[in-house]
Amino acid sequence: MTTAEPEFLTATRTFYDAVAADYADRYRDALAAMPWDRALLGVLAELVTTAGGGRVADLGCGPGRITGHLADLGLDVCGLDLSPRMVELARAAHPAIPFATGSLLDLPYQDGELAGAVAWYSIIHTPAGELPRVFAEFRRVLAPGAPLLLAFQAGDDVLRLDRPFGRPVALDFRRGRPERIEALAGAAGLTVTTRLVREPEPDERTPQAYLLAHRAA
Amino acid sequence: MTTAEPEFLTATRTFYDAVAADYADRYRDALAAMPWDRALLGVLAELVTTAGGGRVADLGCGPGRITGHLADLGLDVCGLDLSPRMVELARAAHPAIPFATGSLLDLPYQDGELAGAVAWYSIIHTPAGELPRVFAEFRRVLAPGAPLLLAFQAGDDVLRLDRPFGRPVALDFRRGRPERIEALAGAAGLTVTTRLVREPEPDERTPQAYLLAHRAA
Repeated sequence: MTTAEPEFLTATRTFYDAVAADYADRYRDALAAMPWDRALLGVLAELVTTAGGGRVADLGCGPGRITGHLADLGLDVCGLDLSPRMVELARAAHPAIPFATGSLLDLPYQDGELAGAVAWYSIIHTPAGELPRVFAEFRRVLAPGAPLLLAFQAGDDVLRLDRPFGRPVALDFRRGRPERIEALAGAAGLTVTTRLVREPEPDERTPQAYLLAHRAA
Repeated sequence: MTTAEPEFLTATRTFYDAVAADYADRYRDALAAMPWDRALLGVLAELVTTAGGGRVADLGCGPGRITGHLADLGLDVCGLDLSPRMVELARAAHPAIPFATGSLLDLPYQDGELAGAVAWYSIIHTPAGELPRVFAEFRRVLAPGAPLLLAFQAGDDVLRLDRPFGRPVALDFRRGRPERIEALAGAAGLTVTTRLVREPEPDERTPQAYLLAHRAA
């Protein structure tokens, strides 16, 4: 007897497998034009390094562009993604970084193993009812005091992305109110210490939110 | 016939003249331990540089520690402070940077002269009734599209700092709610595009707020 996978996991994997190559091309150099994203990732890297370093996971890493950036900042990184095709691309682009296939709902790390984590627009495909489990996993795998940096589209609604890059797939992109995401983190034992919201750039549809949280020391 | 200076200007100048040397010693290397402050200043520097560069003013620069950091980031900077003693210390520490004595209420710059500006904890001594004039001045001196980065203690109350460093002076430190400061900026024609609030570090009394605003292009 096996437990059926939740439908949203199947949909998310199918979607990103289908668009992986287009997505990797589209976003490969995007960070260069995103000073806020680099600033926030830089702060995370500095916090981890100042605290003595250790393994940092990019949770929902896609083709590994953020993972690679964090490695360039001197971190000992690894990446995790639900989509095997994304993981293939990430490995090809960053042969020195370990990437694995897996889900935010069941992270393949030991309790307290991580010195830091990034979830860069990766909580946005999980239905609200499953997010407490995701945040419980984030907390479980972080070492005491370790930081978690979240990025997501700010808002209340859901964007249904249909046939992106012309591919025959569709997926829900769930915006989050920063206060709601902060409450979820707090309920899981992660304390948010920095909140940033910026207005959309011309190619973005919503304000962008970033939260830095810490597991209690 | 001369117009008497508002009392808060006299009090602010007297206070900072009295503590200038102690303050300069206390905060000289503080930025090294403040990743968020450096991250935000770095974004400002990048925005100015990407837009083609130009003169950037540190408004309320004290002994010039932020001014010097912005110069290290490659910006063409100048500094302004109400306290002659602070300006002396700034010049001594950064001989290549032009510093001037003056007030946020009457900035010594031409209309649209600045490619960017920083007001780092410098709006906090101006009574609420005078802040619209300060923001009107910020807007006046910025070039179209130019960014302004503000830092201030978040809150609603006023801290009366009495005999700091044992000196016989006192001054009001006015916390600001980010939404209120954003409204003041907006009323003056400055659009806030990024808002960050972080929890206090152990040596701080309040959350710290940072706003990035732009004059309309």
